Amino acid sequence: MSALQITHRDPNSQARTGLLKLHNGTVRTPAFVPLATKGTIKGLTPTEISDMGFDMVLGNTFHLMLAPGADRVERFGGLGEFMRWSGPIITDSGGFQVFSMGHGTVADEVKGRAQHGGGRQGRVLKIAEDGVTFRSHIDGSKWFMGPETSMAVQASLRSDIALVFDECTPFNVTRDYTARSTERTHRWLDRCISWHDQHGPGPTMQQLVYGIVQGGVYEDLRRESTQAVASRELGGIAIGGSLGADKEQMYEVVSWATDELDNSAAAGLPRHLLGIGEIDDLIRGVELGIDTFDCAMPTRIGRHGTAIVPVPEKRWRFDLTHATGRDDHSVLVEGCECPCCGQGNSVAYLHHLIRQREQTGPRLITLHNLFFTNRLVARLRQAIEDGNLTEIAAKLRAGAAPWSV
Amino acid sequence: MSALQITHRDPNSQARTGLLKLHNGTVRTPAFVPLATKGTIKGLTPTEISDMGFDMVLGNTFHLMLAPGADRVERFGGLGEFMRWSGPIITDSGGFQVFSMGHGTVADEVKGRAQHGGGRQGRVLKIAEDGVTFRSHIDGSKWFMGPETSMAVQASLRSDIALVFDECTPFNVTRDYTARSTERTHRWLDRCISWHDQHGPGPTMQQLVYGIVQGGVYEDLRRESTQAVASRELGGIAIGGSLGADKEQMYEVVSWATDELDNSAAAGLPRHLLGIGEIDDLIRGVELGIDTFDCAMPTRIGRHGTAIVPVPEKRWRFDLTHATGRDDHSVLVEGCECPCCGQGNSVAYLHHLIRQREQTGPRLITLHNLFFTNRLVARLRQAIEDGNLTEIAAKLRAGAAPWSV
Repeated sequence: MSALQITHRDPNSQARTGLLKLHNGTVRTPAFVPLATKGTIKGLTPTEISDMGFDMVLGNTFHLMLAPGADRVERFGGLGEFMRWSGPIITDSGGFQVFSMGHGTVADEVKGRAQHGGGRQGRVLKIAEDGVTFRSHIDGSKWFMGPETSMAVQASLRSDIALVFDECTPFNVTRDYTARSTERTHRWLDRCISWHDQHGPGPTMQQLVYGIVQGGVYEDLRRESTQAVASRELGGIAIGGSLGADKEQMYEVVSWATDELDNSAAAGLPRHLLGIGEIDDLIRGVELGIDTFDCAMPTRIGRHGTAIVPVPEKRWRFDLTHATGRDDHSVLVEGCECPCCGQGNSVAYLHHLIRQREQTGPRLITLHNLFFTNRLVARLRQAIEDGNLTEIAAKLRAGAAPWSV
Repeated sequence: MSALQITHRDPNSQARTGLLKLHNGTVRTPAFVPLATKGTIKGLTPTEISDMGFDMVLGNTFHLMLAPGADRVERFGGLGEFMRWSGPIITDSGGFQVFSMGHGTVADEVKGRAQHGGGRQGRVLKIAEDGVTFRSHIDGSKWFMGPETSMAVQASLRSDIALVFDECTPFNVTRDYTARSTERTHRWLDRCISWHDQHGPGPTMQQLVYGIVQGGVYEDLRRESTQAVASRELGGIAIGGSLGADKEQMYEVVSWATDELDNSAAAGLPRHLLGIGEIDDLIRGVELGIDTFDCAMPTRIGRHGTAIVPVPEKRWRFDLTHATGRDDHSVLVEGCECPCCGQGNSVAYLHHLIRQREQTGPRLITLHNLFFTNRLVARLRQAIEDGNLTEIAAKLRAGAAPWSV
């Protein structure tokens, strides 16, 4: 039985709303999932995250395995207890980070996620059928991560959703490389499921396992991978890997997967789109029937001084480091009730904080960015329930603030 | 008439409680004043500061003059509007920062305040009777600050309390240097008062001017300086400069000033002790009749990973960067209801955040440190009202948590 109870469907797209019932609570879908990569949403507290309306956060297996270590988190009773987040948690498998070290700068192409930090000083020593041997970017120590390792760490973290260990293939690899990599990812999928069945945290907790669809930008490989993943006994399906050179290709690649899923026995399972979270991508992703999204973008650009604003022609971004804002008394977005704008913080003040490297600046902008993202997704949910997603999505794409339509 | 309404007096010391009625609100004294040097309490929001019970914050004239600039803040209606703090603000005169650049490492001796950042790349070009010419540490541009400049900037900042421009003499200068510097500080005092009378923000707002007692560690100079300052028309008295080589000398130097004040026409004026805020210093300062304190310590050590704990033999400090804490599941201080401990954040988690350079760590520890400091001062206020300050101060000095006695 699916953990996702689908509550509404949009008649004009694949979009759906639902309640994703997990061990530590329920996630209202579609939902954006903020990153708590190393056990904290950078600069923020769990209370701030739940106050903004987020139901789930994402922890990273790779980073938490290296520090503070899986055993240490397990002795706390899991990542939620450790970081004082009482709601659901999804954990990334660590595959992306491990392979980023090997792919080097190629990984930069994959959704811009290389800034995670995993690849900078670390080094892959060996990639084999069993898994990957690498050196830690923290202290140079030698580590191994394979399907079983990843699942074991995620069991220790006691996340509500564990993602299987996969290779996130970069964009510029050949069809042949992608095909072989995808096949290995399917073999690893079975090993992950097997490990979880025998050693997972059940029956003390219900940890869902999500398989990951790969296949790069090749339609036949994507569709085959989707069918392969959909045929397993899984709690949900994630879509990963390179999604293309531009947004149009990305949407097409995702649609191959969601089309296959809609025609599979896994149609009712929850679907997660890995590492995607630009405003227009969220709108399209919801239309394609994605239930949950994670992305570093709102927090990453926020702490570097860029705010999300409803201006499509600027990619929904406003760079506060520019001196043009230094006498701007207005808030980031008129009518915004986020913890930053709602308190009347001006563009000029935020510019000052960022220029002076005051940590209050990154924090306030991150809060705004997450708030905006959450309100956008909440507005899409509402539109699906109201049966007017087409109209609302068009307005949001045209630059309407989520609270103004 | 004094802005300070003294409400209780301790029969066994000079300690007193009061209500300091300022333009933007009332400060319950004795009070600790957190630093908002560049227009923010580092990493925190005004709401967090007021929620912890603080009534006033301190902004820095030197830093705010350089960035974002006095005119810019004035166009906002003042520092409070700019940083979204609706309560009272006291502004430091900038004298300390300007002279730190000239004194170089000598300034490190003065209360450890050199980390303010003012002196690192900046450079004093000329010290004259009119004021100080210097190069900005931000961009190398040339600036001048004298008594009138400082008061003009503070008028633009629209602080409730403006401090006069003075030279904060370091510890290791001669008696002769101290005497000449103190005399110049007195001449500057008159120029500050004169400028404020003619050009200050009144009558649109009631901005108090505090004179600053100097005189180094020389009893006759301190007492003369106190008398000189007490003889002027002022809103309050601050005690500044080098206070000695150790705590005993510091307490003695402060007592010379407070003794003189008690025997002067300024006995009822509010008294501020500049840059002092160690736990034992706050206890002794309250006993000496100080009404308000400011200090970088709670915020500065917090953001570098050191927490305030009730352990006198460790100078009330606990270094979270040490690996000894990595498996410690307990909170920083048992029974502490601060935003960090109250949410159950463990020593191990804080250690992890600090080691991983996650900004949530500095923020949580800073919140704890400020909360502890505020509760300590609030407990001393209560003890003065209850008439048992001697007993309570002894327990706090022995390592009791403020909420446990």
